[in-house]
Amino acid sequence: MFALGFGLGTKNKKGEWLEAFFPAPILSPEREIVGIVKKNTSYTDGNRDLALSAKEISECAREIKDTEQKKLLEKLASSSMPKVISVIETDGAVKSTPEAYLKLHLLSTRLAKPNGMNLENIFTCLPTVAWTSDGAIDPNELEEVIMENRLRGKHIEIFSLDKFPRMTNYVIPSGVRIAHSARIRLGAFLGEGTTVMHEGFVNFNAGTTGPNMVEGRISQGVVVGSGTDLGGSASTAGTLSGGGNVLITIGKDCLISANAGTGIPLGDRCTIEAGLYITPGTLVRVLDEDRKTIKEVKARELSGQSDMLFIRNSLSGVVECRTNRNAISLNPLLHDNN
Amino acid sequence: MFALGFGLGTKNKKGEWLEAFFPAPILSPEREIVGIVKKNTSYTDGNRDLALSAKEISECAREIKDTEQKKLLEKLASSSMPKVISVIETDGAVKSTPEAYLKLHLLSTRLAKPNGMNLENIFTCLPTVAWTSDGAIDPNELEEVIMENRLRGKHIEIFSLDKFPRMTNYVIPSGVRIAHSARIRLGAFLGEGTTVMHEGFVNFNAGTTGPNMVEGRISQGVVVGSGTDLGGSASTAGTLSGGGNVLITIGKDCLISANAGTGIPLGDRCTIEAGLYITPGTLVRVLDEDRKTIKEVKARELSGQSDMLFIRNSLSGVVECRTNRNAISLNPLLHDNN
Amino acid sequence: MFALGFGLGTKNKKGEWLEAFFPAPILSPEREIVGIVKKNTSYTDGNRDLALSAKEISECAREIKDTEQKKLLEKLASSSMPKVISVIETDGAVKSTPEAYLKLHLLSTRLAKPNGMNLENIFTCLPTVAWTSDGAIDPNELEEVIMENRLRGKHIEIFSLDKFPRMTNYVIPSGVRIAHSARIRLGAFLGEGTTVMHEGFVNFNAGTTGPNMVEGRISQGVVVGSGTDLGGSASTAGTLSGGGNVLITIGKDCLISANAGTGIPLGDRCTIEAGLYITPGTLVRVLDEDRKTIKEVKARELSGQSDMLFIRNSLSGVVECRTNRNAISLNPLLHDNN
Repeated sequence: MFALGFGLGTKNKKGEWLEAFFPAPILSPEREIVGIVKKNTSYTDGNRDLALSAKEISECAREIKDTEQKKLLEKLASSSMPKVISVIETDGAVKSTPEAYLKLHLLSTRLAKPNGMNLENIFTCLPTVAWTSDGAIDPNELEEVIMENRLRGKHIEIFSLDKFPRMTNYVIPSGVRIAHSARIRLGAFLGEGTTVMHEGFVNFNAGTTGPNMVEGRISQGVVVGSGTDLGGSASTAGTLSGGGNVLITIGKDCLISANAGTGIPLGDRCTIEAGLYITPGTLVRVLDEDRKTIKEVKARELSGQSDMLFIRNSLSGVVECRTNRNAISLNPLLHDNN
Repeated sequence: MFALGFGLGTKNKKGEWLEAFFPAPILSPEREIVGIVKKNTSYTDGNRDLALSAKEISECAREIKDTEQKKLLEKLASSSMPKVISVIETDGAVKSTPEAYLKLHLLSTRLAKPNGMNLENIFTCLPTVAWTSDGAIDPNELEEVIMENRLRGKHIEIFSLDKFPRMTNYVIPSGVRIAHSARIRLGAFLGEGTTVMHEGFVNFNAGTTGPNMVEGRISQGVVVGSGTDLGGSASTAGTLSGGGNVLITIGKDCLISANAGTGIPLGDRCTIEAGLYITPGTLVRVLDEDRKTIKEVKARELSGQSDMLFIRNSLSGVVECRTNRNAISLNPLLHDNN
Repeated sequence: MFALGFGLGTKNKKGEWLEAFFPAPILSPEREIVGIVKKNTSYTDGNRDLALSAKEISECAREIKDTEQKKLLEKLASSSMPKVISVIETDGAVKSTPEAYLKLHLLSTRLAKPNGMNLENIFTCLPTVAWTSDGAIDPNELEEVIMENRLRGKHIEIFSLDKFPRMTNYVIPSGVRIAHSARIRLGAFLGEGTTVMHEGFVNFNAGTTGPNMVEGRISQGVVVGSGTDLGGSASTAGTLSGGGNVLITIGKDCLISANAGTGIPLGDRCTIEAGLYITPGTLVRVLDEDRKTIKEVKARELSGQSDMLFIRNSLSGVVECRTNRNAISLNPLLHDNN
C-alpha cells in the first residue's frame, strides 16, 4: 500500500471534486489501518477515492489506534463538509482529483521527494479552480458568485485561476519562512531552514533540501541542495515550457546570483555570476587555476560537475568556467583536458 | 454609439466614484437599447455616466429585450449599492471614472483590442484606490478604516494602492489560467488559451492573442501573438517609463527566453536566448545560414522581421542575429545585404 | 528620549507578542508626554515596552495635550484588544518585539531614514508570524486554525510566513502608489511621489527619496534618490545574502534598466543598460566622450560617481563606462586617467 489520506474537499455544483485537503497524509500505511478502511467503507482495492459519510468516518475513528489519525477522524466526523478518503495502492499514473491532491500533500509534508513519485496525468486530474477569499470555486460558477457578492456590497477576492493552490493554505512545513505564499504551489518540497523571499518561486514537485535562501525560481522537477542560494530572479530552466528535456538539479553550497540562470545541472560549490545565463548550448571556455584555457565546450558537457565558477569576462565577452576559488575542495574533472 | 454598460460602483465619502463594475458591457449597442436608456433615464447624448435609481433600472429592465441585459438589470434593481450607467457615444479621450472602467472592461472581455481605443487621459480619470479585502476604499479614508478594524480585533488586508484593480475581480475571460491574479490589471486582454504563470505580468491595454504561455512581463500597449512563449522575467519594453516611443508587438510562435527582453517589435518565429536583452540601439551582427556576416545594424532596423534568432556569442561577446533554425519558413529580409 | 508609541498588538497563546501596530509613533517625544507616561504607567526609564490596561490608557488620554495622541489614546482605551506602549529612551540594539515594530513604523512613516537607526538584533526580536486573512497567527498554532476553519467550511488565506508584515496593513504613506502590497515590507521608506509597480520590491530599512518609479528590487539598506527609475526586475545587491559588504546607494535621476543590476553605489544621472549587471569585481573599460579608452578598472573603483553610462558593447562584449550623454552635467572624475 503506497499511501492513504482522510480529508475534506470542495465540490462544484455538478458534484465534481475541485480540491481536497489531507491534514495528515500517510505514506506506506500499516495493514491495520487499511483493514479498518476496508471494513468500514466501500473501499476494496486499487487506487480509489471515496466520499465518506460521517458514520463511516466515525467507525474508522473508533477502531483506529494511531492517535493523530484518530483525532483527525473524530474532527472530520463532526464536520458537515464533504469528506473524502484517497487510497493509493500502487504509485501509478494519477487518476483522480483527490489522488492528485494526496500526492501533492505527500510532497509538501516531506513524505515524498520531488521526482520520487509517478505524477503522470496530474494536469488532467487537476481542474482549474478559482482560488478565492471564500475558498475554491469552479470558474464556471465564478461570475455568478462575484455578481451576488457585488449586489450585496460584499467583496470577494479572486487570488488565482490555477490548477494548483497555494501550499500554505494546505501544508505548513516546519522551519520555513515564506515571504509571499502566492508563489509556492502545493506540491513544493521546502526543506527545514528554507527561506523563500518575495521574489522566490517554487513549483510543485520541486524544492530545496534546506537550509536555503531562495529569491529565484525553482521550476517543476528542480531540486536545490543544502546551503545553495538562489539570488533575486535567478532562473532554473524547467522542462514544462521553454526549457529542454534535462531535469535540473543544483548541488550544495552553490550561488546562482541575481538575474542569473542555469539550463544545466550543477554539482556542489558552483557559482554563476549575477546576470549570466548558462544554457546547455552556451560555448564555455574552461580555464585552469592560472586562467589558462583548457578547452572550449558546450555547457551541457559540464553538467553536474562541482566547483565551477561561471562568469562572462567583461573585457572579452567570453563565458568562462573558472575553478571556484571560494570552493572548499577543487574538482579534478575541470582540469581534465580530455 | 460606441459602447454602453450598466453596473455597480463604489463611491468615497465625498460621493466620487472610486470604481465601477460592468458585468455585461456592450460594444456598439443597438438603437433599441439606447432608446430605452434615453426614455427611462436622464441620458440625452454624448459621453456621459449617470448614477441610476432602482426605479430607472427597473424600467429599463422591463422594456429591454436582450436576455442577458434584462437579467442583469433585474439583478441590479434589487441591489442597494450605487448603480451606474456609462454611455460612450464616441470613442474620445476618457472623461470620467465610470467611462474609464467601461473601456477597461471592453478590453478584458475581449470586445476591444489593445491599442484599439482612445485611452487618452485615462490616468487622470482613474483615482488611486486602496484595494482591500473589504473592497475599494479611498486612500484618504483608509487609515481610519484600518484603525476601526484593529480596535475591534478584525483584520483588513490592503492588497494594493493603485489606479487599476486586479482583472479577475471584474472579468473572468474564458479559457485562461492565471496563477497570480495580483499581476493582471483590469484592461488586460488575455486571449483564449493563455496561461499566465506566477512571474507573468500583464498591464492594461496589452495582452495576448492566445494560446500563450506568459512567465514574463507584458507592458502597456504590448501585444503578443499566438503560440509565443515569454519565459520567466522576460521583459517587453514599455512606453510609459524607461522605454522608448515604439510600441512593441511580438508575432506568433516566438520565444523570449527567461531573463531576456526586447525593446524592438518582433515578427513571427523569433527567439531571444535566455538572459539577452535586445534594445533598439543594440548593434547586431546579422549572420546568414553559414554564419557569415551579412551586415551590422542597430536592432531597431530589424524591427518586426520574422525568423530571427538573437544570441550573444559566448566566445566573442557579439550579439548575433541568426536565421532561426527552428523556424518553419525563412525570412529573405535577413539575407538582404542592404 | 528617542521614540515612543502607543498601540495595539497581537499575542500568541503563550502570551508572547507577535506584532504591534503603532498608528501615530512619536520621534523625540516631548518631556510632557514622557512625564504623563511615567505618572500613569509602570514605565520608569530605559528601553521598555509594557502591556497597558484600558485604565492606564484612559489616564494618559485625559492628561495629554497633543490632539492626535489624545484621540488615539481614547480610541485605544475603548478597545478590548491587547494594548501596548513601547518607549525607546536610547537608539540601541533592538531588545523586544514591540520595540522592533516601533522602529519599523518610524521608517515607514518617514520619521526615520534608512540606515539612520540602530537595527541590530531586529531579526532576533521579530518572531516569524503567519500573516493571514484573520490577522497575525503564531505558526505553531496555524495548523489547528486552518483545520478549524475547514471543518466549518470557512476559508482562511495564509498570505505569508515571515518576520515582517506588509507595510500597507500598518502604514499608508502619503502620495504613493503600490501596485502589489505583498512586496513592500513594513520598515520600507517610500518618499512622496513613489510608484512601486507589480514587479517592484522594497525591503525594510530601504527605500526611495521620491519621486521614483520602482519596478525593480530595493534590497535592505539600499536608498534610491529622487527621479531615479528602477526597471522591471532591476536588482540592487543587498548585504544580507549573496551580496557584499558595501551598502548600495543610488543617486538622483538614474536609470537602472529592466533586468539590469548594480553591486556598486552610483552617483547621480547614471544609467545601466537593460540586462547588464555591474558587480564590484566587473572589469570596466572607461571611455571618454570620443569613445577612447581612458582606463580599465574594477567597477568598485567607480563607486558613487555620477554621469556614468554602463553598457556591454554588443560587438565586442566589453563592459564600457561611457559619459552619460543624457546627463545634465558631466563628471570630470571619469576623465581622470588615474
